[in-house]
Amino acid sequence: MMSAMDWFNDLFAKKNERIFLDYASATPVLPEVKRVMEKYDSELFHNSSAIYQEGVRVKQEVEDYRAKVANMVGAGAKEIIFTASGTESVNLAILGVFEEAKEIVNKPHLIISSIEHPAVVRAAEEVVRRGGELSILDVDEEGVISFERLKKLLKKNTVLVSIGLANSEIGTIQPLSKVGRFLKEERKKRNPPAGGQYPLLHTDASAAPSYLNTNIETLQCDLMTLDGSKIYGPKGVGILALRRGVSIHPLIFGGNQEKGRRAGTVNPGAIAGFSKALEIAIRDREREGTRLESLRQRFINHVIKRVPQAIVNGSSEFHLPNIVSISIPGILAEFLLLKLDVHGILVSVGSACSLDERESGSPIIEALGKKELKESSIRFSFGRFTTEKELKKAVETFCRLAQNMVK
Amino acid sequence: MMSAMDWFNDLFAKKNERIFLDYASATPVLPEVKRVMEKYDSELFHNSSAIYQEGVRVKQEVEDYRAKVANMVGAGAKEIIFTASGTESVNLAILGVFEEAKEIVNKPHLIISSIEHPAVVRAAEEVVRRGGELSILDVDEEGVISFERLKKLLKKNTVLVSIGLANSEIGTIQPLSKVGRFLKEERKKRNPPAGGQYPLLHTDASAAPSYLNTNIETLQCDLMTLDGSKIYGPKGVGILALRRGVSIHPLIFGGNQEKGRRAGTVNPGAIAGFSKALEIAIRDREREGTRLESLRQRFINHVIKRVPQAIVNGSSEFHLPNIVSISIPGILAEFLLLKLDVHGILVSVGSACSLDERESGSPIIEALGKKELKESSIRFSFGRFTTEKELKKAVETFCRLAQNMVK
Repeated sequence: MMSAMDWFNDLFAKKNERIFLDYASATPVLPEVKRVMEKYDSELFHNSSAIYQEGVRVKQEVEDYRAKVANMVGAGAKEIIFTASGTESVNLAILGVFEEAKEIVNKPHLIISSIEHPAVVRAAEEVVRRGGELSILDVDEEGVISFERLKKLLKKNTVLVSIGLANSEIGTIQPLSKVGRFLKEERKKRNPPAGGQYPLLHTDASAAPSYLNTNIETLQCDLMTLDGSKIYGPKGVGILALRRGVSIHPLIFGGNQEKGRRAGTVNPGAIAGFSKALEIAIRDREREGTRLESLRQRFINHVIKRVPQAIVNGSSEFHLPNIVSISIPGILAEFLLLKLDVHGILVSVGSACSLDERESGSPIIEALGKKELKESSIRFSFGRFTTEKELKKAVETFCRLAQNMVK
Repeated sequence: MMSAMDWFNDLFAKKNERIFLDYASATPVLPEVKRVMEKYDSELFHNSSAIYQEGVRVKQEVEDYRAKVANMVGAGAKEIIFTASGTESVNLAILGVFEEAKEIVNKPHLIISSIEHPAVVRAAEEVVRRGGELSILDVDEEGVISFERLKKLLKKNTVLVSIGLANSEIGTIQPLSKVGRFLKEERKKRNPPAGGQYPLLHTDASAAPSYLNTNIETLQCDLMTLDGSKIYGPKGVGILALRRGVSIHPLIFGGNQEKGRRAGTVNPGAIAGFSKALEIAIRDREREGTRLESLRQRFINHVIKRVPQAIVNGSSEFHLPNIVSISIPGILAEFLLLKLDVHGILVSVGSACSLDERESGSPIIEALGKKELKESSIRFSFGRFTTEKELKKAVETFCRLAQNMVK
């Protein structure tokens, strides 16, 4: 049987000598994942709401996958909501908590970090449009949130704090459980009607499952978003995991699927694929993390030696092992990207979901206090099929092109 | 090469002698459809927002599919929004028009028919929760809307009328283009600020594409929902097609995908599959319609002869060729369903997305003025792989079981 690596090489790298270093934006669906999905297209295509045997079987299998996923993230099965993307999960978390809170809290207030994904930023802006309040929690130059500042931003009407577990552009990991414990204490202090209920902590952990613990108990968070397409699962599926007792208003209304919290025909193939992908992510987490961290360090050392002007963004201590964000003063990142593309190296400037097509450059780099570098930053993101040989070639090409540009 | 029919028999019917007559709730993904989807899992898994060659290629292919779909439904390519389900499209249409209208119309008013899918009903209820108004447009005993009553319900603040093109439970087809023309005239009469813009007509046409014209120009509608999983395409994809000039507020916020009207990583496989499925639906529309209408008539004749108490619901004149809704006074449909299941015949009571799990029976049958039959109604829905032989066996089994129950 072909190994997954052979499969990938056959598919991609060897065939056309292209080196994919943009795993944070998309991952191929693993053969193991594809395998569990296939039968739901044909053999078991039935609607999981149907009451005949086939429908019941689909429903049972979906519930089995739900229980597995719940177990993997430390939630109850009833607290897993399958959605169609990480973006939808984020929207469900933010707008869902806001709409629910609005019934008992006047002008619900939200806090998000200054380096959140566009889904968080835009959903939070929608909250403001609907009459809520929003505060932005600054990060330091390494991208780490300021805990003291969070304390200052907190208000009596704060119902939700949304902080990404790990940033997909610069790789910085946040001290989430510390925030979670603090908010838990805050909840205890509050008087009714919001006493005990708010503020809640949501984390978009989409970039994390392959490398970090994504157990909501460990993370001390109340809502967590994951996305299938970032963990070698299918596109078109995400989850929102809730701590028991957290209730949200739906985003999409209709049938009673997902216990009335998210309507629409259940997509068993996508759910099966998500579950298998998460299982593999957790299974290989430690090994892949160690392997990529070592490659990452060598990659960075090489760049610093060859391009002394290069600045490595993010935290030297708290970072994902697969992300390298580099700024080179004076160069135009998009131009360098296109040159790399010509040389067969696939990288990006940051989140594929750009906030604003009219404004160029990275709002994340700007939030680090490096506005002058926002158009000069490139993200390399490694993954499961990244090899030392690939990175050697990539880093040499990158350094050569960058040197030519800064000259 | 295996024909699609051989494939289906192999897969399903022959193998275990099961007869699937619930095509209105779910359809298997056709091999032709699967074929166009596959490469996006692995070979072209890249994010369509990426600027390297592979990303650009994915984006180009998605845009090609968008143009094809647009052409098939009579809309501009810019007016096709890909979503994750028919339910999401319906929510985007209803909540999207409402939120957009709210800026210029006080207490926007909605009209929906009394036999809409739960997605329409629940989204409309959410409009009320958000401060809008809602009127229900009655249907006659065949399920056809009353045009005169629509005229009476229309108010100065009416911004949207939502009427399903064809009902998925009883098969009744509405005189949609007549409604569309009327609303167009209404728009002309109105004064600013809503002058010329409202009221709009949305149709959930999810049950229709395999049998009816679903061109928005012909239907004279302003927004139209379709669902991939009801036309032998994949689950997890739908479209909302807009008439040029119709603008809506988003439902899901984040990246600038779908021109800022629906955020989330683009799902090229699902989009490709949807496009191919719609193409096949249109290609085979006439032939399949004629074939199934003839089977439908014979099926109904058989039932009426054998079970004189049986009542055929819906319109004798304006109906889908693949839906047979039958009520038998005094029997409990769910019980009959389970018996049919034991005999290898897969049918359902109605929409798989039940409105309320606590309340049994069909709200559609109730809306026809047949409240006493709401728990005594069964829907048979035929499809592409339904054969005369299958129906012969199914109708005989059904009549035998039903006769035993009414005795």
